[in-house]
Amino acid sequence: MNINASIIGANGYTGLELINILICHPDVTLKYVTSRSDQGKKVSDIYPSLFSRCDLSFSQADYDKIAQESDIVFLALPHGASAAAAKELYNKGTRIIDLSADFRYQNLNTYEDTYKTSHPCPELNSAAVYGLSEIYREQIKKARIVANPGCYTTAAIVALYPLLEARAIRADNIIIDAKSGITGAGRKSDINCSMSENLENFKAYSLTNHRHTSEIEEQLSKANKAPLKVNFSPHLLPVKRGILATIYCDLFDQDKDIKAIYDNFYQESKFISVLEENRLPELKNVTGSNYVQIGFIKDKRLNKLIVVSCLDNLVKGASGQAVQNMNIMFGIEESRGLDFIARYL
Amino acid sequence: MNINASIIGANGYTGLELINILICHPDVTLKYVTSRSDQGKKVSDIYPSLFSRCDLSFSQADYDKIAQESDIVFLALPHGASAAAAKELYNKGTRIIDLSADFRYQNLNTYEDTYKTSHPCPELNSAAVYGLSEIYREQIKKARIVANPGCYTTAAIVALYPLLEARAIRADNIIIDAKSGITGAGRKSDINCSMSENLENFKAYSLTNHRHTSEIEEQLSKANKAPLKVNFSPHLLPVKRGILATIYCDLFDQDKDIKAIYDNFYQESKFISVLEENRLPELKNVTGSNYVQIGFIKDKRLNKLIVVSCLDNLVKGASGQAVQNMNIMFGIEESRGLDFIARYL
Amino acid sequence: MNINASIIGANGYTGLELINILICHPDVTLKYVTSRSDQGKKVSDIYPSLFSRCDLSFSQADYDKIAQESDIVFLALPHGASAAAAKELYNKGTRIIDLSADFRYQNLNTYEDTYKTSHPCPELNSAAVYGLSEIYREQIKKARIVANPGCYTTAAIVALYPLLEARAIRADNIIIDAKSGITGAGRKSDINCSMSENLENFKAYSLTNHRHTSEIEEQLSKANKAPLKVNFSPHLLPVKRGILATIYCDLFDQDKDIKAIYDNFYQESKFISVLEENRLPELKNVTGSNYVQIGFIKDKRLNKLIVVSCLDNLVKGASGQAVQNMNIMFGIEESRGLDFIARYL
Amino acid sequence: MNINASIIGANGYTGLELINILICHPDVTLKYVTSRSDQGKKVSDIYPSLFSRCDLSFSQADYDKIAQESDIVFLALPHGASAAAAKELYNKGTRIIDLSADFRYQNLNTYEDTYKTSHPCPELNSAAVYGLSEIYREQIKKARIVANPGCYTTAAIVALYPLLEARAIRADNIIIDAKSGITGAGRKSDINCSMSENLENFKAYSLTNHRHTSEIEEQLSKANKAPLKVNFSPHLLPVKRGILATIYCDLFDQDKDIKAIYDNFYQESKFISVLEENRLPELKNVTGSNYVQIGFIKDKRLNKLIVVSCLDNLVKGASGQAVQNMNIMFGIEESRGLDFIARYL
Repeated sequence: MNINASIIGANGYTGLELINILICHPDVTLKYVTSRSDQGKKVSDIYPSLFSRCDLSFSQADYDKIAQESDIVFLALPHGASAAAAKELYNKGTRIIDLSADFRYQNLNTYEDTYKTSHPCPELNSAAVYGLSEIYREQIKKARIVANPGCYTTAAIVALYPLLEARAIRADNIIIDAKSGITGAGRKSDINCSMSENLENFKAYSLTNHRHTSEIEEQLSKANKAPLKVNFSPHLLPVKRGILATIYCDLFDQDKDIKAIYDNFYQESKFISVLEENRLPELKNVTGSNYVQIGFIKDKRLNKLIVVSCLDNLVKGASGQAVQNMNIMFGIEESRGLDFIARYL
Repeated sequence: MNINASIIGANGYTGLELINILICHPDVTLKYVTSRSDQGKKVSDIYPSLFSRCDLSFSQADYDKIAQESDIVFLALPHGASAAAAKELYNKGTRIIDLSADFRYQNLNTYEDTYKTSHPCPELNSAAVYGLSEIYREQIKKARIVANPGCYTTAAIVALYPLLEARAIRADNIIIDAKSGITGAGRKSDINCSMSENLENFKAYSLTNHRHTSEIEEQLSKANKAPLKVNFSPHLLPVKRGILATIYCDLFDQDKDIKAIYDNFYQESKFISVLEENRLPELKNVTGSNYVQIGFIKDKRLNKLIVVSCLDNLVKGASGQAVQNMNIMFGIEESRGLDFIARYL
Repeated sequence: MNINASIIGANGYTGLELINILICHPDVTLKYVTSRSDQGKKVSDIYPSLFSRCDLSFSQADYDKIAQESDIVFLALPHGASAAAAKELYNKGTRIIDLSADFRYQNLNTYEDTYKTSHPCPELNSAAVYGLSEIYREQIKKARIVANPGCYTTAAIVALYPLLEARAIRADNIIIDAKSGITGAGRKSDINCSMSENLENFKAYSLTNHRHTSEIEEQLSKANKAPLKVNFSPHLLPVKRGILATIYCDLFDQDKDIKAIYDNFYQESKFISVLEENRLPELKNVTGSNYVQIGFIKDKRLNKLIVVSCLDNLVKGASGQAVQNMNIMFGIEESRGLDFIARYL
Repeated sequence: MNINASIIGANGYTGLELINILICHPDVTLKYVTSRSDQGKKVSDIYPSLFSRCDLSFSQADYDKIAQESDIVFLALPHGASAAAAKELYNKGTRIIDLSADFRYQNLNTYEDTYKTSHPCPELNSAAVYGLSEIYREQIKKARIVANPGCYTTAAIVALYPLLEARAIRADNIIIDAKSGITGAGRKSDINCSMSENLENFKAYSLTNHRHTSEIEEQLSKANKAPLKVNFSPHLLPVKRGILATIYCDLFDQDKDIKAIYDNFYQESKFISVLEENRLPELKNVTGSNYVQIGFIKDKRLNKLIVVSCLDNLVKGASGQAVQNMNIMFGIEESRGLDFIARYL
C-alpha cells in the first residue's frame, strides 16, 4: 500500500515529529509540508537532524493541490485555524486528522466555553471521531475526519476510562496531578519557555482552568454513563518530553482486580502497557515511543487507588497517535511505522 | 556572641550545606567536622567550592573533645547512629540538633514501626523538641535537643498545620503530591542517582509507604486535635534541589479567607511567604534560600482547596532550618546568617 | 537473510543500545544476551523501556552454545575480559565484533602502554580489523573479528583522516577539544556519575593522558603516512548522550577546498554528513542516530582550520557502528536497521 | 559607610544579580532600579525570589534624580544605549560602572569595527578604566567611570595575562576554547534560548567572529607588550550559569614554574584561586560566587600548556565584578558583600 500524506502547519514540534515518523513509515509518501512563516525554507534547514533525510521544503497551503495529491492530511494548526482548513479540505474529499482541539468535543457549547470562540464549522464537527485509538478504534476505521486527542487528555483517559466503565472507582473524587515536559508548549519564542527560566525549576500552572479539563470530563462522562467532574492540575517539568500523571481516586471495593480490568479493556491494544500492581512506570520507559505505561497501587489505609500513567506528549500524545489513527483508517497494522522503542537513555 | 559549633557526619550534602551556612554565620565558629569515611581529608578537597574558604579537615568523632569545645553539635548521621551519638553528647552537656529521624516522633511505636528498629535511647526522646521552627519556636528556645524535621514533612506541615488548626479543611481527604530534587537522596554512589538514569526522567516512588508519612500525620494530628491520615505521594524531579508539594483537600466553607489564616499563623515568621490567592510559587523562587513559599487556589467546582508549598530541601528542609533552630536556641535573631536570597537562576 | 546474533556483557548501556537496534533490525534474530551480574533477570526488568518488546532474559555466557547458535557475537565487556572471550569464541568459529579496546591497536606495545596490561591473545590481534566503517569498509567485509573504535576516536578520526591524507593540514599542531555526555562513562554506581554532582556542572578531565589519545594517533599516523601526535582534551557535558569535538589545526593553504576533500572521501558514506563551510553542527542533530555531522570554518587571521565533529557516543560511537560493521560483514546494505532519525528534541 | 546605588536597565539577568548582591551588601542602599519595559512593576513581581526582600519597583530613568541621589550608578544597558546614558550621568557628577562594551576599548577603531557602530562619546572613553579588578586595581580606585569586562574576556584574561607578562608562553598560538551557560545570552524571548532547543544539546557558535575576541586581544597585547591575536571559540553549554575556558598555548620552557607566576601575580587577589599543577577546576566550584578558579597542566609530549579557567558569568563575569569594582572605588574591603560561597550543588 502507498498512502500519500501531507501536513499543514508542519514547522512546529508536532509537525517535526510527524515528519520523522512519516518519512520512515513503510507505506507512506510524504507529499507536502506547509508553513506560513517558514515557507520556502528547506525542512532540514529548520531541523538539521533531517539533513540528508528529507529534501522537502515548506510550501504554502495550496489546498486544491494538496487535496488532490494526498490521501490523508494532518492538520497541525492552532485551534480555530484548524477547523477552517479542515472545512476546505473536507469538501475537496481528502481524509483528515486534526491535531488541534477543534473537533474534539461532541458538545459544542463546551468547546466554545473552553476555547472562548465560536466553532467555525459545527456541521463538520458531528462527522468527526475522537481519535483515542484504543477506545474509538471501530469508529476511526470509518471516519473521514479524526480529532486527535490532547496530550494530557490521552494520559488521563487511558488510565481512567476502563476503571469508570467497570465501576471500580467513585466518579466524584478524582484528582489528576499531571506533569509535562516543555515541548508541550510548542515551538515558541517565549521567555517562559527559556532554559534560563526552566532548568532546575518546577511549577504548577493553570490550576482549576486548564483547557484539557473539559475534554477529559466529556470523555470520562461517557465511560461513567453520567456527567462527572475531575480536578486536573498540570505542572511543568524541566524535561523536554513526556507526561506523567498521578491519579488519585476512591475505590468502591479494595479487593477489585484492577489489573484484570485493564487487561480486559486493552487486550487488543499493544501500545498500552499495564504493569503489575505496585510496579510504577517512569517517563524514560516511554519517551520517544508510542507507548503508554500504566502502573497502579492501592492505598488501603485510605481506600484509594493511585494510578500512574505516562506517555510521550509528542508521540502518543500527538503525532504518534495521529499516525496510529491513520493506520486504522487505512486498514493497515495499527503499529505500522510506530514500533520504535522508548529511549530510556 | 560567639557560638562554637561542630558537625558529626559532615561529609554528606546536608553537612556541606551546614558548613556553608555556618562559616558565613557572623556569630558562629565552626570547630569540628567529622566523617568516618573521609577522615583526615581536607573539606575543600571533597568540596572544592570551599577552596580558600574552609581550612578544616574531617576528623574522627572524639565526643569528649567535641562536647567540651562546642556549644552546639549538629548530627548529620543515619537514623539509629544519630540517636546513639546524641546520647553520648547529651550526657556530656552540649546542646544538640539532630537532622535524622531519631527524635522526631513523640510516639515511639510509630517511630519503631516506621524505621523498623527499636529506639536506642527512649529516655532522651521525651526531652527532644520537634524543630519545625515556626510551630515550636517557644519550646525550641528552651530545648537541649532538637529533632530537625524531614524535608518533605516541612513542606507539608507548614502548608497544612494552620488550615487544620483553623478547621478550614476536612481532615479525611488530604492528598499530598510531592516532588523532590535528587539531593534529597543524599550523596550516594548509586546507579539510581546517576545522571544517565535521571536526566529527562520523572517518576513516582514509595507510594503509600514513604517514611515521612507517619511524621506528617503525627504533627498534623496535633493541629487537628484528633488523629488523621493523609495520602503522601513522593516523586523524583530531574533537578538537584527543591521540593514542591501540591496538596489537595476539601474545604468546609468555600468563602473562608485562607490568606488570613496563614497570615495570622505566620505573622512572626519571616521565612514563610504566603502569596495572594491564585498566585502560585515555583521552585526557583526558593531554591538556595531558607524560605518556604505557599500559594493556594480554590477549585470551586469541586469544593477543593489546592495548596502549593515549596522550599529547598537542603536549606529549609534540612540545614537552614537547623541553623534557624540554633539561632532560636541561643536567643539571637532567627534569620541571623540565613538571609541569602533564592537563586531564581 | 537471517543473522543470529548474541551479545556478551549485554546489561550495560552499549548492550542496551545493541539490543534496541538488533530487535528492530529486519535481518537479525537476537539469540542470547549474557550478563554475569544480572543473570536470570528479564531484560525488561532492568530496562522497562523494553516491556512488551523483548522477552529475553540475561543468561550466563555459555560459549559453546552461543558460538553454535550465533552467526555473530558482540562483545560488550571491559578490556582484558573481552580479548579472553574473543579467543574462546573465535576458536569455535563465530564472527566477532568487539566493542572493547582489546583489538584496536596494530601496535601491541601501544596497547599495553595505554591499558597497562599485557594482551591476552596477541595472535588474534593481527587478524582483527579496525572497525571505523567508512575507512576500513573493504577489510571489514572479509574480517572474522572487528575491533569497534572508541567513541571519541570515531569523532576525531572521521574529521581528521581525510584532511591528513589529502595533506590539507599540518600534522604537528592538532588540538582536539572534545566534550562528551555522561553515558560515555557507562552504567555505574559512582558518585562521580550522580546527577547531584553533574547537573549544571562542566569539567575537563584526563587532560594529556586519556586512553583514546593513542588510538587516535595510531589511526591518524596512517592517514599521515608518518607518526604524529595530537593533543586530545576530553570534557564532561551535563547531557546523557553525544560527543562534540572542536578540532583546531593549521592549514597549509587557506584556499584549499576542504568541502571537496570530505565529499570525495565520504562519497559512499551516507552516515557522514558534511555541512557547507561556515555551518556548524550541534549535538541534537545527531543524538539518537548513527550519523556523524561535520562542520568547518577557516580562521583566516590565524591560518587555522576549525572542524566541529559530532555523533552519538552510544550509536555511531559504539553500538550503531558495531551493527554497521555487522551489515558490512554480512554483505547487506550498510544502513540496514540503522536508519532512525536523530532526536533533535 | 553608606553608598547610595542605582541600576539603569535593571530588569535583565545582570540587573537581577546586581539587585541580589546590593540589597545584601552591608554598606549599600539601593535607591533606583530602572527599566523601560517593566516600568511601574514591582521587582518582586518579575523576580518572585525577591518576595519579601525587595520593595522597589522598576522606575523610569530620571537621570537628574538618580544622579543627585546616587553615589554610584550601574549601567546594565545594551551597547550604544549605555554610552549615551553614561554621558548624561557623568556630566551630572555621579560615578559610573558600565556593564556594556561601550567603554572597554582604548582603541576606538577596534570598538567601532567590532560593534559596527560609531562611539557616542569618544571624549568620555579616555576617562574610563577597564574594570578587570585584579589587573587595574590602582586605576579603578581613582576612576569615575569603570568599564566592566565581558564574561568570556574575564575568564580568558585572568588566565593568560600573567603568563604573557612573564613570557612563559608564546603569543602566537593561543587557542581559547570557551563554554558558557545560557544566561550569557541574557533574558530573552528567543526560540534559540528555549529549553526545548537547548536541554541535552551542545554547540559551538560565532567561531572566528565573536565580539569578545578583540577585547581579549587588546588586553593581552598589553600583557605581551606587543600586538597578538588569539583564536577564541565559544560554545553553548546546557547549563544556566558559568563559563569554563580550556586554553591551549605553547611553552617556551617546560620547566617554568607556572604556579609561582600566578601566585606572584595574584598574591593580593582573594577571588582568584589557582589550584596546584595537574588539578582541574569545575564549574560547580565557582557558580554562584565571585571566584575564578584556574587549573593547569603541561602536555610535555607537545610542549604545550593547558590552562582551565572558570567563573560564574553573572557574578565575576558581570555583576559580582561590578560590585568588586565599586568596593575598590569607594575604598572599602574588595570582597565586601561578595563573600558568598560557590554552589557546588
